[in-house]
This record gives sequence, C-alpha cells and structure tokens, in this order.
Amino acid sequence: MNDPRLAELSRALPDLKLTTDSGDLEHYGRDWTRRWHPAPLAIAFPATVDEVQAIVLWAFAEGVAVVPSGGRTGLSGGAVAANGEIVVSLDRMNRVLAFDPIDRTLTVQPGMPLEAVHKAAREHGLIYPVDFAARGSCQVGGNIATNAGGIRVIRYGNTRQWIAGLKVVTGTGELLDLNRGLIKNASGYDLRHLVIGSEGTLGIVVEATLSLTSPPPPSQVMLLAVPAMDALMRVFAEARHRLTLGAFEFFTDRALHHVLAHGAQRPFGEISPYYVVTEFDAQDEAQQAAALELFEFCLGEGWVTDGAISSSEAQAAALWRLREGITESLAQYRPYKNDVSVRISSVPDFMRDMQALLDAEYPQFDVVWFGHIGDGNLHINVLKPADVDDDRFVAQCEHVTKLLCDTLTRHGGSISAEHGIGLVKKPYLGSVRSEAEIALMRGIKAVWDPAGIMNPGKLL
Amino acid sequence: MNDPRLAELSRALPDLKLTTDSGDLEHYGRDWTRRWHPAPLAIAFPATVDEVQAIVLWAFAEGVAVVPSGGRTGLSGGAVAANGEIVVSLDRMNRVLAFDPIDRTLTVQPGMPLEAVHKAAREHGLIYPVDFAARGSCQVGGNIATNAGGIRVIRYGNTRQWIAGLKVVTGTGELLDLNRGLIKNASGYDLRHLVIGSEGTLGIVVEATLSLTSPPPPSQVMLLAVPAMDALMRVFAEARHRLTLGAFEFFTDRALHHVLAHGAQRPFGEISPYYVVTEFDAQDEAQQAAALELFEFCLGEGWVTDGAISSSEAQAAALWRLREGITESLAQYRPYKNDVSVRISSVPDFMRDMQALLDAEYPQFDVVWFGHIGDGNLHINVLKPADVDDDRFVAQCEHVTKLLCDTLTRHGGSISAEHGIGLVKKPYLGSVRSEAEIALMRGIKAVWDPAGIMNPGKLL
Repeated sequence: MNDPRLAELSRALPDLKLTTDSGDLEHYGRDWTRRWHPAPLAIAFPATVDEVQAIVLWAFAEGVAVVPSGGRTGLSGGAVAANGEIVVSLDRMNRVLAFDPIDRTLTVQPGMPLEAVHKAAREHGLIYPVDFAARGSCQVGGNIATNAGGIRVIRYGNTRQWIAGLKVVTGTGELLDLNRGLIKNASGYDLRHLVIGSEGTLGIVVEATLSLTSPPPPSQVMLLAVPAMDALMRVFAEARHRLTLGAFEFFTDRALHHVLAHGAQRPFGEISPYYVVTEFDAQDEAQQAAALELFEFCLGEGWVTDGAISSSEAQAAALWRLREGITESLAQYRPYKNDVSVRISSVPDFMRDMQALLDAEYPQFDVVWFGHIGDGNLHINVLKPADVDDDRFVAQCEHVTKLLCDTLTRHGGSISAEHGIGLVKKPYLGSVRSEAEIALMRGIKAVWDPAGIMNPGKLL
Repeated sequence: MNDPRLAELSRALPDLKLTTDSGDLEHYGRDWTRRWHPAPLAIAFPATVDEVQAIVLWAFAEGVAVVPSGGRTGLSGGAVAANGEIVVSLDRMNRVLAFDPIDRTLTVQPGMPLEAVHKAAREHGLIYPVDFAARGSCQVGGNIATNAGGIRVIRYGNTRQWIAGLKVVTGTGELLDLNRGLIKNASGYDLRHLVIGSEGTLGIVVEATLSLTSPPPPSQVMLLAVPAMDALMRVFAEARHRLTLGAFEFFTDRALHHVLAHGAQRPFGEISPYYVVTEFDAQDEAQQAAALELFEFCLGEGWVTDGAISSSEAQAAALWRLREGITESLAQYRPYKNDVSVRISSVPDFMRDMQALLDAEYPQFDVVWFGHIGDGNLHINVLKPADVDDDRFVAQCEHVTKLLCDTLTRHGGSISAEHGIGLVKKPYLGSVRSEAEIALMRGIKAVWDPAGIMNPGKLL
C-alpha cells in the first residue's frame, strides 16, 4: 500500500477491504482468457453500494482506471486488469436483498453466482431461466454486463429480458436506480437496456431486480445422431414445429471425442459427424408421442441415423453432459475461441462457407464446433497443438478470425454472439458495427464516463 | 412553397411529395391530444429510406426541426408540430418488405398500421402479439418510438421484446442498421433498445424487423363483477396461479356506464363497482374446468359477485368490447388522461392513496378508471364537464397530476406507463427519472442529434 493514491483511498474508506498482495493481483487481474499478464494497482472488495460509489469517486479524482470484476469466467478479456487499474471485485456483495411473490422478482447484489440465484428462485417455486455451463462460478452482475445468453435462449431469451430494475454507479460516481421493477414505464430512454451488455464501460452494476417465472412443465431430453450439416436445420425446423422446445444444441464428432476422453460414455455404436441435444416439454403422453414421431419422421427422411431419449432425470443429465462437458474437456488444449452468430435462416449457408474456410486455413489443427443452433449461435474452438508456440498459435488464429469476419459480414452475422467484445474481439468490432454506430457508442461512453476510467480499453 | 428552404428541399428531391396545404398542416400537425395549435412548416411524405435521409440532411443544414409522424394516435403530444417544423409522415412507407419462415420475422416499413402487421403475420400462421385498441390507426413505427404496451403485455411484454432489427436515420442523417435480426449479438451497446421508446428524439425509424410467434392455444374470456378494490389483486393472484393468462384488465362501474351509453349491453343485473375481463388458455377440459373453479373459489371468498364466461368467439368479442370500448365512449368528453404504473405488488396501496386523492381533488368531475392491472398500469380519465372552460379544466387537472406525481414517487411508480412523455407529461418527467438520469438522456440526445432538430421540445 505504498502508493499514495491507495493510502488516500484507505483513509477515505477505512473499512474497505483492499489488497495489493501479489497472489491476489494475479488472481483477480485475469479472467478465463490467459493472454494478458495481470498487473492491477490493487483489488477492492466493497461490501456496500456506498463503498462502490466512494471508490469510483476516488478513481475519478485520482484518474485511476476501474475494472468491475465478477466471477471472471469471461472469454473475451472483459475483466482483465493489466495496466495499473483498481479491480472492484463484487465477491462480497453476494446476497439476496428481497423477494416479492406478487411481482415475482428477486432483488440481488451483483456478486451472487448464477447458480445461487437459481437456488434462491427455486426456494420460492419459481425459476430464473438464464442458464449456462459456468453457472457455478459466474456472477449475475457479470451476466448483466455481457447480456449473457446460454442454453435456454431459444425459449427464454437473453439476460436482458429478465432484468426489471438495475442500480448502477456511473463513471462520475452517480448512483442510478433504473426502472425500479416496473413492467410498463414509458418515460424516456431506457438506460437500463444501455447498461445491459455494456461490459463495465459505462458503470458498475451494484444491484439488480430479476424477473422470475413459473417452472416449465416436465421435459425430456433427446440426443440425435445427424449425418450431414444440411440435415441439422431440417431437424430443427421440424422439431420446432412439432414440439415445445426448451433447448436445441448441436456439436460435432470432434467435440464428442473430447468429452468421451474426459470420461463421458459413448451414446451410440456408430460415429456420426453431428449430434443434436434437444430438450422439450413432455408433460403428457401426447407430447411424448410427438417426440417419438419426430424421431421416426427424421429417421425416415434420412436426417438422423440414431437417437436416444431420456426416461429419467439421470438419463437427461447424462445426455446433457455430452454437450455441457465440451468446454471443460477442451480447457487443457488452451483453445482459441470464436463465438459467432447469424440469423437462424443463414445458418446453413454460413456453416458451409465457414467449414470451407476452416478446412482451408486450419488443416493441421483440431477444430471443435458446437453451439446453440436454434439461436444462430456457433462456437468454434481451435485447439492449440502442444508443439506450437502460444504467440504463433494466436497469431494464426487471429488471421483466420479476420477472414471469418468477412464471411460473417457477408451473411449479416456477428463476431460476438454472447461472449462480448472485451479485449479479444476488439479488433473485429468494425465487422459487426458500422463506423456511425461505433462513433455513437464512443459518444455515449463519454457522456457516462467523461474521465474514461470505466474499464478503459475494453469494447471500444 | 414560398419558403426558400422548402424550395431548396424540392430542388434536392423533385419526386418528394410535399404539401403546405392548410388542411394538411392542420391534419398532420396534431395527434389525439387537442391542446396545441398545429403550425408546421410543411408535411413531407417520403417513399424511401433515401428520401428520409435526404430530408434530415436538408433539415440539419437549414436548421429546420423534424417531427416524425405515424398514425398520430398518441396521447402525449409526441407527434404535435406547432412550431414551424417539417412533419415527416411515414404514411407512404407502409409495406411488408420480407417474411422469413425460419427466423419467423416480418420486415416492415414504419408506416404500416398495427392491424396490417397482425394480418400479415396471420397469413403465415403466426402472430405479432403487441395489441391495443388503436390498432387500426396507429403505425408500427410509432409503436416502436413509444415502446407501445397494450392489452397483451402480461403474456408477451411490450413492443421492445418483438424488435429483432431496426433501421434508423439519426439527427445527422446517418442510416443505422441495428442488430439485423440476430437473436444473440454481444457486440457493444444495444442502440436498438435506446431507439425503442425514444419518441422520435434520436432519429426516425425507417424499417423494422419484427419477431413473430406461434398463435396461443384456444382461449376463453371471463367477465367478473368485483365488489371491492382490495379484492381485485386477490382475484389476479388467484387467476395467475390457476390459469395461463393472456390478459387481465379491469374497469370501474363509471367506465361501464359510458360504454353502455355508447351501445354495449349490460352484462349483469346488479351494478358492481369494479369489473375484470380476463382471457386465458382453454385448450382442453382441464383448463376450462380450472376457470370455473377459479370463479367458484372467488365467489366463495366474496371476491366476486357475478361472472360470465364466453362460449363462442362472438361472446368473447362482446365481453372484450366492454373494456375496449371505453376510450372511444369517453372521447366526446375530451378527457384529461393519466396513464400511470407501479409495481404490481404496490397496486393495492397505490390505488387506495390515489382514490383518496381523486375523491378529494375532483369531487365535481366524472373520473373513469380502467387499466391493465396485471402490469401495474392504471388509466385515469377525468371527463370535462360541458360548462367548464378548456383551459381551466386542464389547469385543474394538471394541479392534481402534480399531487399524483408525489403519490407515484412514494410508491415507486411512473407518470407514464405506456403513452410516453411527449409534451403532455414533460413537466412531470422529474417525478420518475432522477436529475442524473435526465442529464444522461440529454447527453445521449446531443450525441445522436447534435443540432437538436429531432422532435425538439418533446420528452426532454
């Protein structure tokens, strides 16, 4: 704490938990990306909204950059602190503040892990339907900052749809109380929606009122082996028509290969190039029969070659594991990740072009695809061979990402579907947003954060 | 066309339909409010996005204010042109541009009436679920500019939720193509959501990609006579628990009185102080039985005193007419309108305070209440007695609105639930948005519209 600025902060907030321990700087200065060397000035652990406000006012006065910090499960470097910033960890602000059974809202602090939010909702017989594999580690404040998507978007939409109110501290230390849980509020620009997805560059989310909903009816999970890329969208269209879908995910045989190597059980005797995991309402015999009819129809059309349907929660979990285990099974290979989206209708043409590009540019690398095909969202993971040096690997992948951007632009897509722009995708922002849009974003950023201290260098 | 600025516009756009006919100025210079005397410079009827852009560039160069103009069914003066503005009517841009069955999107021009959008969606077996009584006259561009709500919000949310893409011309004449129909797109600030609800103060919506959805299952409509205010929320909580609600509306006996005087049929023998109209899924006998059980339960609890349930579409329409006919039946009395919202959980306490306020302040006026109680949205219509002069009537109502704002602030509510701020609610914006929020809104407005030509004087 030799830094005079930190001494000033400690004087102003004697109760603030603040650390400059080198292990903490290392730990809290990085997220799931591993490309930047953490070098923050200090880590602050505020316990109250007042403390967050006071930290930002201090940072504003001292010209110190602020990195809001949640579960740091991000994949775009949005929570990296590598330039003498103060990291504001929300770890200690992790409680439920209120539940209202009539409004069906849960008011929470931003540091609550997503899984804890799920649990709190279930205790009241309701659900918070945003869900994805990092649920145990990610925090709801970070989910809001990135408008997190995940595996239930096809039914429930993104995080944006579930935020009824937000308290935010701006770059000038103002505390905003946005929308306050109202369902209808036509009183000018909805600043809440501007904050959602802003990656900490406009302010820090210090409280959120989440909308909850009734649990869905009982469901079943079906795994399908799909022999060809063209068939994927046909199966999707047919499934959406016949069933009430809760999820519709796909992955390739290469993805399955890694999950199996990580301990999962092979589902079918034959290897298939593509697989679909879909979850659908199955509350009565008619709905269950519809799923079987779907399977038989797709089999008859040659769009699927094999299938399995869950008849217990354990079986459902086992089928889900084949999809949800992918990211973890790849982690040891330090994959370079693309997270792209197009309109659903553009998926087949885009996938063809993308496959051709990847085959041409990555002949020597193991490329693993999976994604939320019902949302037009594809994840591409390029695994780093052990004998290729980190920098060379990333440089080659970034070259391909530039080409991928051209393909995306041609198909009207986005270089970031749900991971956010952060540091990793910043060079490619211009492929998805026009110059005029980026100029407006910069202008808005300057209004909210005139000193440029809120997560600088990220996104813009 | 003697104005040299208009001569310049005509030279620049020889094909642009432009009028300064006094009847047109009168007609297109006003909306459903009648407080301002229309006095626009001219009315332009662009047929293309290029024409809209050229008009804004001309206005920017000449310093002429621009009023974007849809169906002008607004109730807040948001489309009024009373100060030499150019009105940009979107009437001629009223076509469907594209339908995509896989994306389930309808891309439309902004001048399409809402009802025409409904019809176009139904032709493809889908629905666009935003709906309210002005459907025949209002235009989808105006719906977006005000984030229109209506009678289906309880199930489907506001307009915001159904906008997958927007093309917008900003105050500098830039054409933005926002989000382009993507479901997942985490690439920085979502400017689309900033435009939705901005009341034409940031730019003109020139194209929208609307999300459609499957039609709901068959439904029934139930009318309930409710003897006391306290019982309304009890019936709502019980109905939401037992049924799948598509709408839950209420109105008072005074409202029914006017609808009956306008030609509707009295539903019950006895007069009741409050009525509820609710629509709910009734696709099988179990759901239909649940509705009857709800009715009997509420009857047993003394929360309702009578009820009627539709057994045909004609009966459903007749029950709906009692609610949907209110606004039209009041029009002749030139009502002063309040359109307020609170959190659903605050409705009972707020209604009690509001009732006391209205009883004290309006002892001599006929006050008609109705609203979307399941969204916390109440409409209060104060009817102008024939012998009271317009200005005095409005002055007295504005005095009460100030008091109502205090009540709303106490209950965390909004002075505009769905009508927007426009000119009518502008004096009260500070009751729902903080000074810091309003300063941010002004800053954002200056970024989008540095010359201050987009619908100036409205909202901010």
